[in-house]
Amino acid sequence: MADWVQATPHLQTRRPQDDILIIRLVNEPYNFLDRQCFDELNGIIAPLDIKTTRAVILTGGVQDIFVTHYSVDEIIDFGLSVPSWMPAPPFLLRAALRLESLIASLGLRYLTRKTLFAGIADLNLYKEVCNLFRSKPQVFVAAINGLCFGGGCEFALACDYRILIDTDRPVMGQVESLIGLIPGGGGTQFFSRTLGTAKALELCLEGKTLTSSEALELGLVNRVSRAEDLLDTAVGVAKHLARRSPYAIQAIKDSIHVGGSMTLSEGLLREQGWFGGAALVAETHEAMKKYTRMIKEEQPQSLEDFDHYLQPLANGSFFDFSPGSARSAASTKASKTD
Amino acid sequence: MADWVQATPHLQTRRPQDDILIIRLVNEPYNFLDRQCFDELNGIIAPLDIKTTRAVILTGGVQDIFVTHYSVDEIIDFGLSVPSWMPAPPFLLRAALRLESLIASLGLRYLTRKTLFAGIADLNLYKEVCNLFRSKPQVFVAAINGLCFGGGCEFALACDYRILIDTDRPVMGQVESLIGLIPGGGGTQFFSRTLGTAKALELCLEGKTLTSSEALELGLVNRVSRAEDLLDTAVGVAKHLARRSPYAIQAIKDSIHVGGSMTLSEGLLREQGWFGGAALVAETHEAMKKYTRMIKEEQPQSLEDFDHYLQPLANGSFFDFSPGSARSAASTKASKTD
Amino acid sequence: MADWVQATPHLQTRRPQDDILIIRLVNEPYNFLDRQCFDELNGIIAPLDIKTTRAVILTGGVQDIFVTHYSVDEIIDFGLSVPSWMPAPPFLLRAALRLESLIASLGLRYLTRKTLFAGIADLNLYKEVCNLFRSKPQVFVAAINGLCFGGGCEFALACDYRILIDTDRPVMGQVESLIGLIPGGGGTQFFSRTLGTAKALELCLEGKTLTSSEALELGLVNRVSRAEDLLDTAVGVAKHLARRSPYAIQAIKDSIHVGGSMTLSEGLLREQGWFGGAALVAETHEAMKKYTRMIKEEQPQSLEDFDHYLQPLANGSFFDFSPGSARSAASTKASKTD
Repeated sequence: MADWVQATPHLQTRRPQDDILIIRLVNEPYNFLDRQCFDELNGIIAPLDIKTTRAVILTGGVQDIFVTHYSVDEIIDFGLSVPSWMPAPPFLLRAALRLESLIASLGLRYLTRKTLFAGIADLNLYKEVCNLFRSKPQVFVAAINGLCFGGGCEFALACDYRILIDTDRPVMGQVESLIGLIPGGGGTQFFSRTLGTAKALELCLEGKTLTSSEALELGLVNRVSRAEDLLDTAVGVAKHLARRSPYAIQAIKDSIHVGGSMTLSEGLLREQGWFGGAALVAETHEAMKKYTRMIKEEQPQSLEDFDHYLQPLANGSFFDFSPGSARSAASTKASKTD
Repeated sequence: MADWVQATPHLQTRRPQDDILIIRLVNEPYNFLDRQCFDELNGIIAPLDIKTTRAVILTGGVQDIFVTHYSVDEIIDFGLSVPSWMPAPPFLLRAALRLESLIASLGLRYLTRKTLFAGIADLNLYKEVCNLFRSKPQVFVAAINGLCFGGGCEFALACDYRILIDTDRPVMGQVESLIGLIPGGGGTQFFSRTLGTAKALELCLEGKTLTSSEALELGLVNRVSRAEDLLDTAVGVAKHLARRSPYAIQAIKDSIHVGGSMTLSEGLLREQGWFGGAALVAETHEAMKKYTRMIKEEQPQSLEDFDHYLQPLANGSFFDFSPGSARSAASTKASKTD
Repeated sequence: MADWVQATPHLQTRRPQDDILIIRLVNEPYNFLDRQCFDELNGIIAPLDIKTTRAVILTGGVQDIFVTHYSVDEIIDFGLSVPSWMPAPPFLLRAALRLESLIASLGLRYLTRKTLFAGIADLNLYKEVCNLFRSKPQVFVAAINGLCFGGGCEFALACDYRILIDTDRPVMGQVESLIGLIPGGGGTQFFSRTLGTAKALELCLEGKTLTSSEALELGLVNRVSRAEDLLDTAVGVAKHLARRSPYAIQAIKDSIHVGGSMTLSEGLLREQGWFGGAALVAETHEAMKKYTRMIKEEQPQSLEDFDHYLQPLANGSFFDFSPGSARSAASTKASKTD
């Protein structure tokens, strides 16, 4: 494996194979996430091209720490920046967040950062980077090498896949309520949409910290791994999922995250729009042709036969979606050369 | 049990008792669902009257196959029908789907089928039939006698109740991503609304195939049965649920599928609208009177007593909702003869 | 512990400590909820001030009965009040419910109660009281001492935390379908948002009754307790959660219940609005300062260290949010004396 490259002040990167990028956060001593880290992450992740990168692994570069939590000092500063005479009910803060999003979309975030809205900009930036994990055609795998509380937990939950080191110590959880805060990076949303309302309430109200087996049983992580094998396991998952069609990955992520949060009829329509788009991708067309040919030739007869014939499809040896199949999702219409 | 009747080219039917209809799909060799099958299904299910049919069982008539998946040949044809120079981003495809729904509601689908929108019409037809399972007052039970992948899995998931044969072979799952597609019949929606976001992502991205015990543990099927008992088990479930009030069945299905996908306040209101309607149904009125009388006479005193007195209610021997209680859901207002 | 006070005709109250209120429903012989009970509950809960009350425990004052269910006699009366010639489809009932809410907000519910809309007013009142559980900054704990069916189950499910007596007898469930009704107090919504669509359908269609271990395994209750320890356990949970910031409790409840039922982007924004508000609360500011000081001084190095330092935060001995931290949620903006 190549050596780590110091890509930005707090981020090191490495490519275990050409199209897989590992990003390692190093922000000593506690690997707190903060404005600076998110600026750096945004700078690396936003421009990632599917032609060169199919999967991204995020991990922590401090012993036993993925991300302890978001920088509390920055949250304190946000509190200090707002004059105490100023009313700040949630609906006004939401309006400020919407406004700052608009300003940022005009490229003017640097201006808001000089005002008392700097904290608002930080909240939006956090959300934008996590939205990238959900909206890009790459697969995002969190390799959680240790502490993963608060904003770190939400950061991991925004990824597509989570692998956690095996430990009996509490290592993961939305602990914000312990100091009077609440999750601000999507923790309440992810918990309620993954665990259901009752469990989400219990965990967030208590600020419960979870061991790796608790996190696995709840379904907050997809897999647990020995600490020494963590990165290898993550690379294995990344390789496996990177063989899937990037268009399909993007479409599935959007259908589940966005479509699954809409009314049923809107969600069904959203999925169908993506399905239609996927059916028009050239590589998918080839894969479908190859599959129907295989079925006609091999004539599977039993559950055993199908199990046998689906294995190569599952592991990607039957059809490996090449980088060329990747297009900008919103405008994909593949040329069919058939 | 009566013999199978060849109702349409691909569908055989049988009635184990007057008000229960078994529909068996026979589309050799792999029981693929396709446009033709859905036309036939629509023709049988749409006009079903609650006065004559209280429950529908859907099963497969090929050994070890429920529905292998939707016809890939038809999806390929859809891809070929759209010229490669034509942009087809998801938002345009959604607009086309909406437009075709409108055209179909005017009875003009046969026209769109002659155009390049034929595939769009197929997607809408699939959705319409599955919406019937969710919106009709009958109970729909899927008796899954074998392979149930892709569009077959979604077809089963649209039913109210699923019974799966016991097998150690992978038999069920949304495998679309293996050939670059995504679920298009609601798989991402059903998975995310039943299993939560994290598990839905994992299963759909991987295209994971599940054994019967895995499907049961996840909650994708309600029950597992020995293959030789499958249909008897399904008939038992159908008989059990068919004793419930059809108005209540329709109301519960809508409150959960539609109401449960709305904001909380809209969902609560939707449930309440149905609750009010149910309270006005004549048979429900009778059942409530009989229940309050029983309580007054028997005076249950303990958890044991209540357990005892609720048994006949649960098995339907206390009050069996007769066919007459069924009305068109949107306009039910029972006459009260009390 | 102080003696029970007969606060209203059907409600007894007691305060095991100053800021924790136990409300015990006594409506012999079956502890049915009804219009009168909800009027009394509303009268006690709506005006509760966070300065004097941090947690509320709801329990039943009849042996082995929490709430058997809502009064069926009242539902029968509702049915009788609506003339049989009057059409009452769900959409008209929803319109009536919306209209009655408006009338009630003008303080005129006493008028509607004299009309055939009395039952509509009861449905709205039920919803309003349960909405209080979800929207107030207090923690609501249901101490379920026995039968908890139908409207009783929904009443418990509207609380933040549920503790159920340990019993092998069926004790909890949405049984409405057994007599042709459906849940009307949110049962379909809570089940689908906590258990997912498939399990919600199964339980509501069947009208399934659950033992305590079944309810615990499904996640419908947070804990099971021996009957004789039930109230002590509930008080323990109340004390534990009452040490959290009321602003955070209110914010987490809203973010999960309301935010979690919106589209993902709206839900994320809702959470962020509350997060920003929490960061501005004076006590939270102090807690954050104390926490960052602790980290700087103690310099935790390992998972073990963090486990050790988080214990006092979790049990509230590190920072106990005093009553003064509580403000009206919609307008909280704390003064910062730093």
